[in-house]
Amino acid sequence: MSETVRTDVLIIGAGPVGLFAVFELGLLDLKCHLIDILDRPGGQCAELYPEKPIYDIPAWPVISGQELVDRLMEQIRPFGAEFTFNRMVSGLERLDDGSFRVTTDEGEHFEAKVVVVAAGGGSFQPKRPPIPGIEAFEGTGVHYSVRRMEDFRGEDLVIVGGGDSALDWTLNLAPVARSLTLVHRRSEFRAAPDSVKKMFALRDAGKIDFAVGQVGALRGEKGRLEATVLKTADGERQIASTRLLPFFGLTMKLGPIADWGLDLHENLIPVDTEKFETSEPGIFAIGDINHYPGKLKLILSGFHEAALMAQAAKRIVHPDEKVVFQYTTSSTKLQKKLGVA
Amino acid sequence: MSETVRTDVLIIGAGPVGLFAVFELGLLDLKCHLIDILDRPGGQCAELYPEKPIYDIPAWPVISGQELVDRLMEQIRPFGAEFTFNRMVSGLERLDDGSFRVTTDEGEHFEAKVVVVAAGGGSFQPKRPPIPGIEAFEGTGVHYSVRRMEDFRGEDLVIVGGGDSALDWTLNLAPVARSLTLVHRRSEFRAAPDSVKKMFALRDAGKIDFAVGQVGALRGEKGRLEATVLKTADGERQIASTRLLPFFGLTMKLGPIADWGLDLHENLIPVDTEKFETSEPGIFAIGDINHYPGKLKLILSGFHEAALMAQAAKRIVHPDEKVVFQYTTSSTKLQKKLGVA
Repeated sequence: MSETVRTDVLIIGAGPVGLFAVFELGLLDLKCHLIDILDRPGGQCAELYPEKPIYDIPAWPVISGQELVDRLMEQIRPFGAEFTFNRMVSGLERLDDGSFRVTTDEGEHFEAKVVVVAAGGGSFQPKRPPIPGIEAFEGTGVHYSVRRMEDFRGEDLVIVGGGDSALDWTLNLAPVARSLTLVHRRSEFRAAPDSVKKMFALRDAGKIDFAVGQVGALRGEKGRLEATVLKTADGERQIASTRLLPFFGLTMKLGPIADWGLDLHENLIPVDTEKFETSEPGIFAIGDINHYPGKLKLILSGFHEAALMAQAAKRIVHPDEKVVFQYTTSSTKLQKKLGVA
Repeated sequence: MSETVRTDVLIIGAGPVGLFAVFELGLLDLKCHLIDILDRPGGQCAELYPEKPIYDIPAWPVISGQELVDRLMEQIRPFGAEFTFNRMVSGLERLDDGSFRVTTDEGEHFEAKVVVVAAGGGSFQPKRPPIPGIEAFEGTGVHYSVRRMEDFRGEDLVIVGGGDSALDWTLNLAPVARSLTLVHRRSEFRAAPDSVKKMFALRDAGKIDFAVGQVGALRGEKGRLEATVLKTADGERQIASTRLLPFFGLTMKLGPIADWGLDLHENLIPVDTEKFETSEPGIFAIGDINHYPGKLKLILSGFHEAALMAQAAKRIVHPDEKVVFQYTTSSTKLQKKLGVA
């Protein structure tokens, strides 16, 4: 569907370790493209604890998850890495010339000589609610995220959940939907109080509906959703609906990486400690997703792994170049790359 | 001569890696004592490039050597590590109970269950000037550093050199010495212009002497210095002197570490990559002084090595305690140790 994007190194995962890999690879003149399932850089740090203080980043007595990500983004700016967000890498195959072809769940293609898996605990995936037969409607009547609001124009929506995602999408999609019902198992919410207030205002104005209950079943045929069956304190109730949006939070899954033929050990990817290369030459794994004797799941360790990986990646991408190890403190050449000399 | 200092972990070298080791060991309740040949923490960073910008510390787009050291000192403050500066570790022996006894060049004794060598390129040692027979006067008439100014009171001093150390000690020792002559091979100096100005003012006031030339020989008997023979453009000249202080810069030497029976590889200490332990159980080596496949002499790598070493050190010091790996972001127990919870 789209043109193939070519780069030196394709990095799967734009968390802190994937970001710092851009720095180490950039010092060696390697261009990077990062793919992440989230909609912005930072991985877990930005998604799970943007405001939580972290105390064990060296020379940062305290730093928040978001500030760590911001500082790393500033540090890699000179290297012009490209990002593709909101995508899961679904396929990976080796081409005849030894390089890799990577495909996303939206059908984009990438080609790179080196692939670096920096996917942390795996990809964040939406939790599937326990509704019998829900799988049959996934992608046609049941959606776990909103990529384009237009896809929901004129539809009868049921949104399920009590957190920020459920409330935010209720507010955002209300003007677009033909009808919209928010369903939550109780009338207290984890979402921001202001969003909750706005939602009740919309309900009071008759623009949306709010129901306390749980989804018990879905009605429809051949993936076409027709109605959502609600279990409430007063018994069952049926809501005519063409789209169901459950927001039950995210869970971490290794995802398609498990199918790429890499050796795995308890959902982790074993690597050596010289290059952090997997069982497949040219595919590296750094950060929380890898395993080796002594491994600690520290951001710091992922940074170190990125530095050693970069040396090996350089030899694959530019096999004829002699790599001279240089310091940023003393090398004018490196300082020029960083834009400071 | 002095009482034996007992600690959990004795760290040789208070550069950035030795300092961060205090943090990782501290999280595991291990107390540290650091010994360094310099007179303050920071190692090379503080001694060789305190004001030079470093660009490759993760999440620090730019940081000076001194700022890095300051931040690390702030980060380890909660753990109350102790420091012994201006000392070289000269001896290391294993005691019957498996712990280590460490001796400094000033005769202090330390006992610890674990020794961590974080000595960077080795110890900074003063360069010996090429004066025939100078060794015979070292420690009695020739001194490469000033540990106590009182040792030089009432003496006839010759200070040799054109850098900051030579000029600073000229200014500091002038009021204490009976006589003082600064000798430099030319009348231009590398030292701070302000110090040079002050030195010439003292010379003009008749408080010190300044001579352009080089030291050609030393006169004296049985280590008692009596005179310094200068070679100048006008020929030889003899200066009555009881103390010679040559400041010819520092050089890095592995030092006594070479004599401890550790396996060595080109003046580096081979370690495993699981615990960063040397050939001698209980002695670890982290940072620039160690070697393993893929090793890069990056401060960042030393930080990672410190983290993995700490886990192994914990098992040696507290063999009966089960170590549960915890994150500073989520563990209230760790946050209490850091003084933030």
